[in-house]
Parts: sequence; C-alpha cells; structure tokens
Amino acid sequence: MTHPRRQMHLNAFLMGVGHHEAAWRHPRTEARRVFDATHFQDLARIAERGRLDAVFLADGLAVGHRVEHNVTTVFEPVTLLTAVAAATERIGLIATASTSYHHPFTLARAFASLDHISGGRAGWNIVTSGGADEAANFGLDRIPDHGERYARAHEFLEAAVRLWDSWEDDAIVLDVGSGTFADPDRVHRVEHAGPRFTIRGPLNSPRPPQGRPVLVQAGSSKDGIAFAARWAEAVFTAQQTLEEGQRFYSTLRGRLAAHGRSPDGIKILPGIVPFIADTEAEARELEQEFTELISPAHALRQLSRTLGVDLTGHPLDAPLPPLPPANEIRGNQSRFRLVADLAERESLTVRQLISRLGGGRGHRTFAGTPEQVADELQTWFTEGAADGFTIMPPYLPGGLSDFVDHVVPVLRERGLFRTDYTGRTLREHYGLDRPASVFERSDSSGIAV
Amino acid sequence: MTHPRRQMHLNAFLMGVGHHEAAWRHPRTEARRVFDATHFQDLARIAERGRLDAVFLADGLAVGHRVEHNVTTVFEPVTLLTAVAAATERIGLIATASTSYHHPFTLARAFASLDHISGGRAGWNIVTSGGADEAANFGLDRIPDHGERYARAHEFLEAAVRLWDSWEDDAIVLDVGSGTFADPDRVHRVEHAGPRFTIRGPLNSPRPPQGRPVLVQAGSSKDGIAFAARWAEAVFTAQQTLEEGQRFYSTLRGRLAAHGRSPDGIKILPGIVPFIADTEAEARELEQEFTELISPAHALRQLSRTLGVDLTGHPLDAPLPPLPPANEIRGNQSRFRLVADLAERESLTVRQLISRLGGGRGHRTFAGTPEQVADELQTWFTEGAADGFTIMPPYLPGGLSDFVDHVVPVLRERGLFRTDYTGRTLREHYGLDRPASVFERSDSSGIAV
Repeated sequence: MTHPRRQMHLNAFLMGVGHHEAAWRHPRTEARRVFDATHFQDLARIAERGRLDAVFLADGLAVGHRVEHNVTTVFEPVTLLTAVAAATERIGLIATASTSYHHPFTLARAFASLDHISGGRAGWNIVTSGGADEAANFGLDRIPDHGERYARAHEFLEAAVRLWDSWEDDAIVLDVGSGTFADPDRVHRVEHAGPRFTIRGPLNSPRPPQGRPVLVQAGSSKDGIAFAARWAEAVFTAQQTLEEGQRFYSTLRGRLAAHGRSPDGIKILPGIVPFIADTEAEARELEQEFTELISPAHALRQLSRTLGVDLTGHPLDAPLPPLPPANEIRGNQSRFRLVADLAERESLTVRQLISRLGGGRGHRTFAGTPEQVADELQTWFTEGAADGFTIMPPYLPGGLSDFVDHVVPVLRERGLFRTDYTGRTLREHYGLDRPASVFERSDSSGIAV
Repeated sequence: MTHPRRQMHLNAFLMGVGHHEAAWRHPRTEARRVFDATHFQDLARIAERGRLDAVFLADGLAVGHRVEHNVTTVFEPVTLLTAVAAATERIGLIATASTSYHHPFTLARAFASLDHISGGRAGWNIVTSGGADEAANFGLDRIPDHGERYARAHEFLEAAVRLWDSWEDDAIVLDVGSGTFADPDRVHRVEHAGPRFTIRGPLNSPRPPQGRPVLVQAGSSKDGIAFAARWAEAVFTAQQTLEEGQRFYSTLRGRLAAHGRSPDGIKILPGIVPFIADTEAEARELEQEFTELISPAHALRQLSRTLGVDLTGHPLDAPLPPLPPANEIRGNQSRFRLVADLAERESLTVRQLISRLGGGRGHRTFAGTPEQVADELQTWFTEGAADGFTIMPPYLPGGLSDFVDHVVPVLRERGLFRTDYTGRTLREHYGLDRPASVFERSDSSGIAV
C-alpha cells in the first residue's frame, strides 16, 4: 500500500456577488441576490459539488460608509450558515465572529448550536474587530488598542474552550427507566474568572459533535501570529508573493512547538482571487472589465482607511504619500503592511494600486487558464507556502462554478485534491484531531456535587 | 359580502420532545430527537400543514441543575429557527431572547437576519432573564432587580427599533450604471445615547421584510404588563381559569390607549397543554400515564425555585408551607403568583400541585376529545379571554399532529380558523400592520451628510 499523496485543502470564501469591489455592476452577476439567502445556499451546493472543505463568510459589525457603492454583509454569518447547513450535507461552514463585541457564553453557544445543527461542520474565524465604526456601535469612542484586543481574544478563547468542554462526551445518559437524562458528574462548571469575564457555566448545550468548532484565524500581525500559534487550526492569510507566503508559512509553523503543538495541527490557506477563462488573454480581459467598473472615489476612501491617511484629492497617477509607521495603525496592521509593501515593491501609482486591490482587497489576484491556476496553486502547495487555499471568486456564482468545474478536475488529475469526501465533519476534511474535553479525567467534580 | 368572522391565531410552542416534564420517558416520544435539528424541522412542517400562525421557542441562558432529569434547550433558538426557515415556506418563527444578556446591535441584527432569511417570518419573544444561574454566566453575583431588568428592556427596545428602522425601505437603489448600491440619504445613524447603551448605527442590514420582527412578550407582572402595553404585538401568557384570562385580556388591552395603540394591535395568546384522545376517559388516562413518570425530587427542586422556598424534605402530601410575598421574588413574579394562587384556590397538596404543573409548568392543561378541546378554545376566544392560543403539546411530535389533524379541522368547521394562509409574513398571519421606519420623512439626515 502506497502512502497517499499529501492533498490540498480548499475553502470557498463567499462574499455577496463576488470579491471584486465592482462585481455587482458586471453583467455576469445579479446584484439583488446579495439579499437572498438561497443565493448562498446555491453557492455552498456548488462548492460541495466540488468536494471543497468549507465555505467561509467574513463579517463586520458596522456598515460604515460603504452603503453608497457596495453592501458586503446583509446576513449575520452564523444565522446564514445555519440556513446553508440545511441545504447541504458535508461541506464545512466557517463563520467570522468578533471576540471584542460578543460575550463568550453567547458566542460559544451559537457555534455549538451551528455544530449540532450541521452535524459537526462548524468553524469559527476569530477576529478582533479593528474598525472605528464598529467601536462606535458598542459605546466606545475609539478602537480598543491592538494589544488589548488580542488580550481579550486570548481570555475569550480560554473561556469558550472550557464552555464547549463543560459537557463531557459521554454526559448524556438518556436512561428512560431511571429517569436519568444526563450524568451531572460529567457536566462541569467552568468557573472562569478573568480580568474581563466571570462565567460560571456549564454551557447550556451538550458537547458539540466536533468537540469544539474548528478554530480559524486570519490576523498576520505579530499579535495575530502569536494568537494563531496558540489557538488556530486553520489560517486564512493574504500573501502577495511566493517568498512572502513561504516566510509566513515557516514562521507560523515554527511557533507551534512552543505551545506543544505539531506543525500539522494548523492548515495555512492563503487567499487567491482567480479570474479563469479558456485562454490567458481572455482571463486578463475579464479582469480588466471588472477593473473598469471600480468607482475611484469609493476605492480611495477604502484605501485611505486601510493606510491611515486621507487620500481624498490625492492625484490618482502619483505614488502614495508618506505613510504612518505600521505600529501606529490601530486597525488591521498586517493588511496595512501588505498594501504598503505592494505599492513600494512594484512602484505603483494610486490608480494602479486600486486596480490591483480591486479584486481581493489585498489578496493575490491571478488571471489565467484552469491549468495555469492549478499550476500556481501547485507551486505554492509543493514549495512550502500553503496547505491549501481560500478561493475568493471575483464574481459569483460564475467564478466559483468555473473553479469547481474546471480547476478542481485538473487538481484531481494531478492527485492534489480529493475526489470525494472521506469524512463527515470539518475536522475530518482538514485531517484535524477531535480534541478531548479538558474536564475528561480531571478532578473537577460535576455540578451535582 | 359578509364581514369575515373573527378568527383565532394559533402558535405551536415547541419544546424538546414535549412540554410535559416527563415526556422524554414516555413510549410515545424518542428522547434522542432533542439533539436533532431535523426533529424541529419536522414539527414545524406539521404545524405548517395545519396552517398555524407560528412556531415558538423558549430560551434560557443557563443549564442550572436540570441536567440530571431533563434537557430543555440544546439549540440556540435563532439559529435553530433559521434551519427551520429553510425547511418551511409560510409559518412564523418566534425565538425567545434576553434583553439582559445581549447587546441591542447584535440581537437586532440576528433578528433582522432571521427575517431576511425567512422572507418576513421572524418574531422575537422578549424576556428579561430572571434566573440566578443565568446571572452567574454573565459575571453577576445575583439576579438584577426586577425593575432594573425592565428598565434595561425598555431602553434595549428603543435602540433596537431605531436600528431596524435605520435603513428606510427604499434605501436600496441598485443602479448598476451609476454604481449606486444604496442611497446614503436614506440610511441613518441611530445615535442612541442612553444610560446603558451608546450606539451610533446604522444597523449593518437593510430593513427587514417585516420592517421589524413581530414583538412578542410573556411577562405578566406589573412591570411585564406595562412593557407589553408599550411594545408587544403578541402576548404569550399563563392563565389557569377563564375569569383570570378575561381579567388579563381586558387589563392589557385597556392599557394600550395610553400609548396611542389600538386594542387590536396586540394578539393575546394564552398557553394550553392539550391531552387529546378519542374519548375523554382515554385522554385522562393518557395524562395520568405522563404524571406517573414525573420524578418527585426533580419536580420539588423546580417548584422550590419558582416559589422561592426550599421544599426539599417537605412532606409531599401536606399543603405548601408559608410563602414569601410576591414582590420579594427576584425572578418570575407572575409565575410565582399563578402557582401560589392555584395551590390555594384548589387546596392542593405539594404532590397534587406537582401533578397539575407537570404538563405545563403553570400553564393550563386540558384533557379531552378534539371537540372538547375545540369547545374550550372557542369559549375563551368568544368570551373575551383570548385572540388565539399558544398550543403546548405535552409530547412531540404526536401531541402536535393530533392537534393539527383532529382539533384544527373542528375549528375550521366552526369558521374559527383559516383554511389556508392568505399572507406570507408573520405580521400578515396575525393581521398586524407593517410599521413605517421612524426615520421616514424625518429631518434626520442620512450618513452621507
């Protein structure tokens, strides 16, 4: 028996009618579908048809100034993925949610509920919410400090893990004769007492099918990498070049040992925005069509926010003005670095930078034939930059179905991707262990005592 | 054309495998289904087959000491109802959620999301969480004072209404040519600045199909009635006798004028736990079978909590000991009064009281033939005690399908219940107006300014 070849993992990141800023204006999309939950059910069925590992939804807790030109979120992701769960059988369901503006009890419960409803397919993309608009919706007059947001995230996870673990796996007895529904010795108070949260527990939910939802994370700042090394089981990351991807991959994997974790306990899945067509020229033309639909004023406002400088009135055909140092950025520091580095490395004007960012807000865009896209993924996968990818179709549903119907078959021919699911849970798709409860074989007595 | 006869509204209150405390031990149920989301989808399909107005889910934010004998919640209700939405077409979806342990922004958004996903079928049963176990999960060492809980609930609703209204109905433009997705003049900051919450808004969701979810409420204390008179559009209430029901019905409706509301703007739906069989004797036998499965120790603990006295060791065949005054009860004051009054009015021993409460934790139980159940509902409906009912099947799914297949046809023959849906939203089922946004024609400028 030969050892099966290492295979890649693929997430489909679903966003409105596409990741490209102007996707909703292109004739290949139907803008109104962003308001339609069945659109997302349809997309998940396409991804499941391709046997992808998971669908992934972003989130933010404010609408900001984006309403004029784009709406990126209509639905709350956990709710939407529950509707998606009801329309699918196997595909994983990853929802983004913030540790800064939720409480561990209610959020741990929501993900336990999604995991129960979906039969073990839930993943949580953990974010710390770096937006000023978000802070203003929760009574804060400024974004909490980067370090404080991550400190809260660590404490949040400590509490959430104990809540998911509070019912041991065999706590349910269901003995009709004696009238014993659950064994209270196997249901534990969590007694979390930290600087930010005091939570008695147990969670009001039996242990989720996966033990805990798969923990996903996307921050690539210093704090973000430290957080990922301790908690993340899958990482979504923006990397523009193979060298940057390799550096991030080896850096993050190298940090796991300090937490007693194996490097294989984390799946690193960089984002890619693929424009796919029969020829390279057609793919580039397609990308250009989307670029031309970008509203420069809107793009300038987005870029201003990412870079922490006001670019209104700045000439589009000039290079960027001097930028603040990265450590003064209160929001997404790693995205700041990525965009600033990209502009400098390729000596881009503001207009060129906007075009480059239109498709993926910092993620790598790639235009080519199905074989060229497969080549690009294979290179990153085999040369130590990725365990798989987060596919960010520039327009939906066409950009996803093209990937599933034309790129996935090429990856399969090369033995790089599964032909069918072998497991039922997201952990099984990723090849991740199901964690034992921290209360198993512990001295902590149950709530009966 | 004759004026259509006034018809009743019917909610199906779904709880585990039945409302009776011991339902899971009875051979007519399958206990394991409480862990199965498809169980709730199946139940909602049964209720929809009967053209009921809505399904209703309770909630609590702690598991307390109930684990040994019963699990009442496995799923978070908004999540579960989203899965139910995907499996049904028309039936309303009412989820309970607490104003004491959520934030208005995240909860308003969750209900907006459920309303969008379901095409306008969401209802929110507003509770203030009177449990000590719940307080301990959110860092409090005691239950917040009854008055403070309601003060927070009022402020919570003020903020939530403005959040749902923050996008005017015609804010979405979707003009592909100009690249205008939404009209920022019709998307408003809510600028809520109260003692407990500061929220800038707008909500990150276009206005829900129903404008706002239907607001449902169940507290019947003095504070609870004041809250209902201001906010509730449907009221779920526990009333043991016709006279009590009539008094509650006229009291609550009489309070609406002070808020400029019509008495028809609120639907009062008392709970009833029907044991249904071909003969009255068989129905009573069935009820008795369930009573015999109650665990007295568990029931005593539940009763102790409701009454605010420790009944452990109290003789089962003696009357209740002296009780504290109602206004010293920090939790559910109206339920305290109901149980204390029932025990006194009928001179019940503790054992008899437990039997009476087994089926509905304070709600009226009724055993009889389909015609007798229909008679009872008709009497309350025509004699000024109800606009309809919250049906609480003692066991599931059989108790619900018996109601739908045997009682609903009798009500239809009598012209008391619809033969088919005439609307698509829960507001339409209830005959409630769709509220205009508070920002419509207001001077409040949009977020563009």
